[in-house]
Amino acid sequence: MKVITAKEFLQEQRNQAEPADASQLDAVVGDIISKVRCSGDDALYSLTEKLDGVRLDEMIVSEAEFVEAQEAVSDAFKAAIQKALENITAFHANQTEQSWFMNQEGGITLGQKVTPIERVGVYIPGGKASYPSSVLMNVIPAKLAGVKEIVMTTPPQPDGKVSPYVLAAAKEAGVDTVYKIGGAQAIAALAYGTETIRKVFKIVGPGNAYVARAKKWVFGDVAIDMIAGPSEICIIADETARPRFVAADLLSQAEHDEAARPLLITTDRQIAEAVQDEMSRQTEQLKRKTIIQESMKLNGRIILTESLSEAFDTANSIAPEHLQLMIREPFENLAKVTNAGAIFLGDYSPEPLGDYLAGPNHTLPTSGTAVFSSPLGVYDFVKKSSVIHYSATALDRVSRDIGSLARAEGLSAHANAIQIRKDEGDA
Amino acid sequence: MKVITAKEFLQEQRNQAEPADASQLDAVVGDIISKVRCSGDDALYSLTEKLDGVRLDEMIVSEAEFVEAQEAVSDAFKAAIQKALENITAFHANQTEQSWFMNQEGGITLGQKVTPIERVGVYIPGGKASYPSSVLMNVIPAKLAGVKEIVMTTPPQPDGKVSPYVLAAAKEAGVDTVYKIGGAQAIAALAYGTETIRKVFKIVGPGNAYVARAKKWVFGDVAIDMIAGPSEICIIADETARPRFVAADLLSQAEHDEAARPLLITTDRQIAEAVQDEMSRQTEQLKRKTIIQESMKLNGRIILTESLSEAFDTANSIAPEHLQLMIREPFENLAKVTNAGAIFLGDYSPEPLGDYLAGPNHTLPTSGTAVFSSPLGVYDFVKKSSVIHYSATALDRVSRDIGSLARAEGLSAHANAIQIRKDEGDA
Repeated sequence: MKVITAKEFLQEQRNQAEPADASQLDAVVGDIISKVRCSGDDALYSLTEKLDGVRLDEMIVSEAEFVEAQEAVSDAFKAAIQKALENITAFHANQTEQSWFMNQEGGITLGQKVTPIERVGVYIPGGKASYPSSVLMNVIPAKLAGVKEIVMTTPPQPDGKVSPYVLAAAKEAGVDTVYKIGGAQAIAALAYGTETIRKVFKIVGPGNAYVARAKKWVFGDVAIDMIAGPSEICIIADETARPRFVAADLLSQAEHDEAARPLLITTDRQIAEAVQDEMSRQTEQLKRKTIIQESMKLNGRIILTESLSEAFDTANSIAPEHLQLMIREPFENLAKVTNAGAIFLGDYSPEPLGDYLAGPNHTLPTSGTAVFSSPLGVYDFVKKSSVIHYSATALDRVSRDIGSLARAEGLSAHANAIQIRKDEGDA
Repeated sequence: MKVITAKEFLQEQRNQAEPADASQLDAVVGDIISKVRCSGDDALYSLTEKLDGVRLDEMIVSEAEFVEAQEAVSDAFKAAIQKALENITAFHANQTEQSWFMNQEGGITLGQKVTPIERVGVYIPGGKASYPSSVLMNVIPAKLAGVKEIVMTTPPQPDGKVSPYVLAAAKEAGVDTVYKIGGAQAIAALAYGTETIRKVFKIVGPGNAYVARAKKWVFGDVAIDMIAGPSEICIIADETARPRFVAADLLSQAEHDEAARPLLITTDRQIAEAVQDEMSRQTEQLKRKTIIQESMKLNGRIILTESLSEAFDTANSIAPEHLQLMIREPFENLAKVTNAGAIFLGDYSPEPLGDYLAGPNHTLPTSGTAVFSSPLGVYDFVKKSSVIHYSATALDRVSRDIGSLARAEGLSAHANAIQIRKDEGDA
């Protein structure tokens, strides 16, 4: 991992600001979306054959397949899923919102009505990888919000089946239907509907570059959660940090894929060196060694700062998806954090704890979007409506003021709607 | 206004589902965004000259211009702005959120930290029109959220100035800086920054088709509130409704522009006829008569339903921006509404009341997006971060479960990060 100062790092960031040319990606994705809008199910089957190499007879996962999945997974796995489900539910339950109202003098009621989004689609990546944790993290908040219909799309494995881990998680979480369709074509199907897949109002869930780009295309016609970028972790470490732990945590991030960003910010050169040694040593034992080494080389950085204060300023500029504070006083310094998706405090709160089990969501803002975005939550699955009731008396009292504003904006029919009631009141 | 049944209307809606071809718009907007990214301020000045016909010496609105604005507006206008500001603040104050945490046995702290977005840009349309109400509706929630820096962009009028109504509202609401720049170029400047305009993290505010399209382009690099479509109102009226009021309210919507959608849903044919007569009569007196007649002809509909129940089902399918319930029991029927931006109850709660003064936000989801979107609110100007702290003991207890899930997902470095701490604990 390259070692640099904070100043050099931020300069590097600014220089990298040019967006990658997406026109190639857009051409492919745009074409897939058109095909699905035109040919519905037929397009889905042919694209699945072409892109996933799988010839499906049926896209809906059957009850028999769910049963087969339950039998294929271990009891240890089932217990872990149960534990995760409990913790994720316990955490997210704090996010539910109530409708409220207020009264003002003269017969006024104002309020905010909270209603769940009626139908949601969850995209779960698949193919060679298997992400049961993503199923829980996307579905549980939707359930808590009261969403009536939750469907899932996930690409089939080469053998035409879906990972039993994913199906087991889907069953536990309470997904209504699972479709063996992936890629941009799944996003198109969820956004616009086909003969089999009824269109949804919101699409959530991570995916590859094609899926992410397709989500950007359909945004506006449907809602989406966020456009996921490569995974990232930023660890702030002082002299109290344990190099073995820091190294293990950076490596767990790097193994996601070559584009992952493992960053260490430290005030202590000795820690920096010890971490580097540990990383080399530990990498040798890890299965995904090649991906890890590539990610470290491309995007890994050890950033040396003059002070803890500079470390926090740097982290806030990065606005990382995951921030770990492996410092003397993590809680006391929490107030210094302004931009981060998830904040892990102390030596025993490694990111995988949050990825799988602690409860908070693992769908987090990447690529610096933590400056304006939040983890996925129950709030993503409800919408609000304002409620307004004025009595005749109350409206009369504000008639003059509304008239002043409407006239300032040149909207005379607006003023007229008020005046016509005032005239009737005066008569 | 065309009179049709609910069934015919929904069919009409489905047939209209094809998106307008945006490629022409994209070419223009994409070009403007590139110019601003390349040439910064220079591009802003030259685009303002070319597109707004105004040659600016200075883009920042000066203190002198603010003073001039205060002197140009009437006391009645100032009083109305004050009243609106009080009500908007009182309503939105209910939307502020607190950070929270929870403890679990064994030394676990989990939480949600709420932090305001640091810097926000508000786009206010201008040129020939003047929208001081939009200033209040966009800025006040941001202020309540604790946003530190709020800047505004608005196109200059032909005389090179900004509407004094807009400047007076901006001053009252507490905007930090106002830039006399509009259009897609303003959106680009806010999203990417220029020498003068520092980039923001979120852009809110309505605008024309170019502004809306530019917001879609920059989405992802910055956050945006929503992509505004034409304004729309849906009134559900039964036999107790007052045709004069219903007509006035439909007309107030139609005057926004030719693409506005004024819709009446009623169970009562006599009401439908009386409303049509009233609309013809009232239109004659209104300034924006041409726009109103065009909007009525293109998009206005009177939808006849068999029952109140069918009326609500139809309204929910439309998911209107504004929904007025001019029926016998508006409160009792509120529960039937599932999709609407703002709901107005009874005969004395016309939409302009909400547009200007009652308190709830007038930035509302259009084009059916009320199925997944909410009014603009304080919640749009904060972001959340999860907080996780586990003690060594707590982590040890869940090690096995995390390991099961990490291995199911093939992520061995994830499992390793947990194992390395367990080994140390065992040693």
